Amino acid sequence: MNEIRIGIIGYGNLGKSVELGIQQNDDMKLIGVFTRRDPATIKTVIEGVQVFHIDDAENMTDRIDVMVLCGGSMSDLPEQGPLFAGLFNTVDGYDTHAKIPDYFNTVNKNALDAGKISIIASGWDPGLFSINRLYAEAILPVGNTYTFWGKGISQGHSDAIRRVKGVKDAKQYTIPVENAVEAVKRCDMPDFTTGEMHKRECFVVVEDGADKKRIEHEIKTMPNYFSDYDTEVHFITEEELKKNHSGMPHGGLVIHCGKTGLKESHNHMIEYKLELDSNPDFTANVLIAFARAAYRLNKEGVSGAKTVVDIAPAYLSTKSADEIRKSII
Amino acid sequence: MNEIRIGIIGYGNLGKSVELGIQQNDDMKLIGVFTRRDPATIKTVIEGVQVFHIDDAENMTDRIDVMVLCGGSMSDLPEQGPLFAGLFNTVDGYDTHAKIPDYFNTVNKNALDAGKISIIASGWDPGLFSINRLYAEAILPVGNTYTFWGKGISQGHSDAIRRVKGVKDAKQYTIPVENAVEAVKRCDMPDFTTGEMHKRECFVVVEDGADKKRIEHEIKTMPNYFSDYDTEVHFITEEELKKNHSGMPHGGLVIHCGKTGLKESHNHMIEYKLELDSNPDFTANVLIAFARAAYRLNKEGVSGAKTVVDIAPAYLSTKSADEIRKSII
Repeated sequence: MNEIRIGIIGYGNLGKSVELGIQQNDDMKLIGVFTRRDPATIKTVIEGVQVFHIDDAENMTDRIDVMVLCGGSMSDLPEQGPLFAGLFNTVDGYDTHAKIPDYFNTVNKNALDAGKISIIASGWDPGLFSINRLYAEAILPVGNTYTFWGKGISQGHSDAIRRVKGVKDAKQYTIPVENAVEAVKRCDMPDFTTGEMHKRECFVVVEDGADKKRIEHEIKTMPNYFSDYDTEVHFITEEELKKNHSGMPHGGLVIHCGKTGLKESHNHMIEYKLELDSNPDFTANVLIAFARAAYRLNKEGVSGAKTVVDIAPAYLSTKSADEIRKSII
Repeated sequence: MNEIRIGIIGYGNLGKSVELGIQQNDDMKLIGVFTRRDPATIKTVIEGVQVFHIDDAENMTDRIDVMVLCGGSMSDLPEQGPLFAGLFNTVDGYDTHAKIPDYFNTVNKNALDAGKISIIASGWDPGLFSINRLYAEAILPVGNTYTFWGKGISQGHSDAIRRVKGVKDAKQYTIPVENAVEAVKRCDMPDFTTGEMHKRECFVVVEDGADKKRIEHEIKTMPNYFSDYDTEVHFITEEELKKNHSGMPHGGLVIHCGKTGLKESHNHMIEYKLELDSNPDFTANVLIAFARAAYRLNKEGVSGAKTVVDIAPAYLSTKSADEIRKSII
């Protein structure tokens, strides 16, 4: 069997998790990691993995079947997504929900020109959660879908706290409000305001002599990030932060309640829940499964940009159609 | 917009639920119900729905886009599935897991010959649970998948009790064992024996003067159905059975735990859970969503037998690709 030859663009947390995740998939082979830094300075997690400069990628189109793009959605992917879509089959986890339509169009054009496929906005949200929102809405059209995130660390909110004067370091957990989850599961079909679904817990390390009262106030009143939420601020030491809050757990729930029957008297609840010890590891594994789909679909002649809902689930599996019918259906 | 014209073959609980479910979908129109009984004797749930004899269906291939097959898997579908696959696009909920590969092959041949598509084994298990098993296994290949059913009524087990001498009527609930669910969610990756995952609760109405001791013993020791399980038997009156146990609730969970990381030190839990007030209503709504997919795929020239994992999720949605990217992804 031909192994699927994978390249990784960007070697941060997500890139490292993709490097590890590929080892769990016998039908794949990691060709190398591509970075903007000096390749000689990079130590890979797995010994012997080749490191290339990102500029070398364009000369390796015949050596790599799918590029997994592991850069950030803020500044890396808007440039790298369209660029590499014109050279390789790609998979990415572009996650700026509001800009997905524009990103899709730009990537689509280049991928079609190159005859390659690009699966964008993969991962878990967008990604698996999108898939579940779609199935649930299609099956129970008279109903409501609710998405809860957490408990998990939000990078954006942690960064926002770090920008407050006097803050040395910080981690912010997004946590679903328990009463809200229960109301949704009871099929009460509630309408929530922003702050009613999630609360925010912050662990903050301050500079020596910083004014904690002011910092707490500035965090809790920060517009968009915290002012609409029930926010708790805990001041802790640098050691505590390192010891207890250096993991990257995350997760969440998509819950859809719908009604059927002559008088809509029957309630149905569909719940999809993730509890993840490592957000980058799990996201990486989703990207890898969609990389398999990208490879296969392009072999069948499919090109252009796709999102996860455009891909039939079977393309993600290593099992043959026969095996799937025997052991999974 | 052209409405999708739907026919229903078989007018039992599932057929009636499909009749109701179609009313929730603006892009569909119910052309009629087809039955083996005398059409004049059928009173439909919704007034004005046309009732035809099943033998008339073959003359209506130009009036119906998708036939939803609502017969049973034991004796109806093995005959009706292949027959109607040769005439119409079809969707069914064939659920005899072990025979799905054979059923697929027979249906596939006729559907290909007719240039039609047949989506088989739809519903929730097989169906949505199959989809979730596949995604989870593909994303976390180092891991285990567990399927729990219930709390819900098992028709097969209820029927088995009714065959015991002296039993007038009975309902059997399949219930997941709580400790087993918890062990799975903790990612203990347990190996279970048959009876460790589910228990069985039976509500039994006996004939006057029947020997309850003997009946309870016969139920609890019945091979395949009950002898391997923790089984509770409650004797109740006919009135109680009617009042408290005439609904058709069901549900279940697919839980997959997987490991990632350099030393597989990260656990990830994916849980998909259904809580359904009406098993036939929910199953019907799944069939209806896949009927939409069947219609669209056949319009694109796709034919042959398919299972739910062969269908890209987007085909189930009434939303356009643009709308999906804007509002669901």
